[in-house]
Amino acid sequence: MPQRVTHEGAECPVARTVDVIGDRWSLLIVRDAFDGISRFSEFQRNLGLAKNILSSRLRELVAHDILEVVPAADGSAYHEYALTAKGRDLFVILVSLRQWGEDHLFEDAEQHSTLLDTKTGKPLRRLQVKDAAGHVVNSTEAFVRKVETNSET
Amino acid sequence: MPQRVTHEGAECPVARTVDVIGDRWSLLIVRDAFDGISRFSEFQRNLGLAKNILSSRLRELVAHDILEVVPAADGSAYHEYALTAKGRDLFVILVSLRQWGEDHLFEDAEQHSTLLDTKTGKPLRRLQVKDAAGHVVNSTEAFVRKVETNSET
Repeated sequence: MPQRVTHEGAECPVARTVDVIGDRWSLLIVRDAFDGISRFSEFQRNLGLAKNILSSRLRELVAHDILEVVPAADGSAYHEYALTAKGRDLFVILVSLRQWGEDHLFEDAEQHSTLLDTKTGKPLRRLQVKDAAGHVVNSTEAFVRKVETNSET
Repeated sequence: MPQRVTHEGAECPVARTVDVIGDRWSLLIVRDAFDGISRFSEFQRNLGLAKNILSSRLRELVAHDILEVVPAADGSAYHEYALTAKGRDLFVILVSLRQWGEDHLFEDAEQHSTLLDTKTGKPLRRLQVKDAAGHVVNSTEAFVRKVETNSET
């Protein structure tokens, strides 16, 4: 891949996260894993992705401890991919991607899939950034404090 | 770019969002825009990105109405890039990327930048997916309802 620069040493958590999952296929593989997809052939069919690209993305997600390889649930010789605890924590990111897409990328009359509460079948609450008191905060009401480098002092 | 497939027609909001911003550079450009960066040369210096790639990503972000080109704030002949309302709504996604990175990609003793409330200088609340009653919901407690296609009935 051209221009691949890693941000592993970055002090910015956004940069490190983007380094690990900031790839359209990785994000869609994780989405499918949340939807219950676990086998190579199922990912391949659902994403319409070339086998070598899928293999490489799955390998990277396993290396980053987002997916793990487990024996097939049916006892067959196949293996499957399952989300780890770290991978399941990506749920909030997936929900935020979904919410923005619903808000901005569909016409009013256009249908889209929806994420619902299993218990009630109702929609979940909107994700919102809030301050310690619970008030909604927008991007102009927050700031990033950079890490102070001791070598400069 | 090889294997570029668009999901514009997808019924999944995650897929459409990933299509628009599921690229590591686009996400980091948006992060920088939230940090107040507005000029081509500043993005370039901060990201260490080749000019042609940066140009192409900025053009895509403008085409998707995430950034807009505005006259320079200082009245000079330069132009700047500013987040649109649609772009500012990416704040929740950026915060979710940051949170996961903080949780999983730093050692305990390792320092990272932090996002703070401008009013109080204190951390913001954690983002959590919640049901209508306000209880935290994990990925196993939610399901995606797909769009029913009338052509099948």
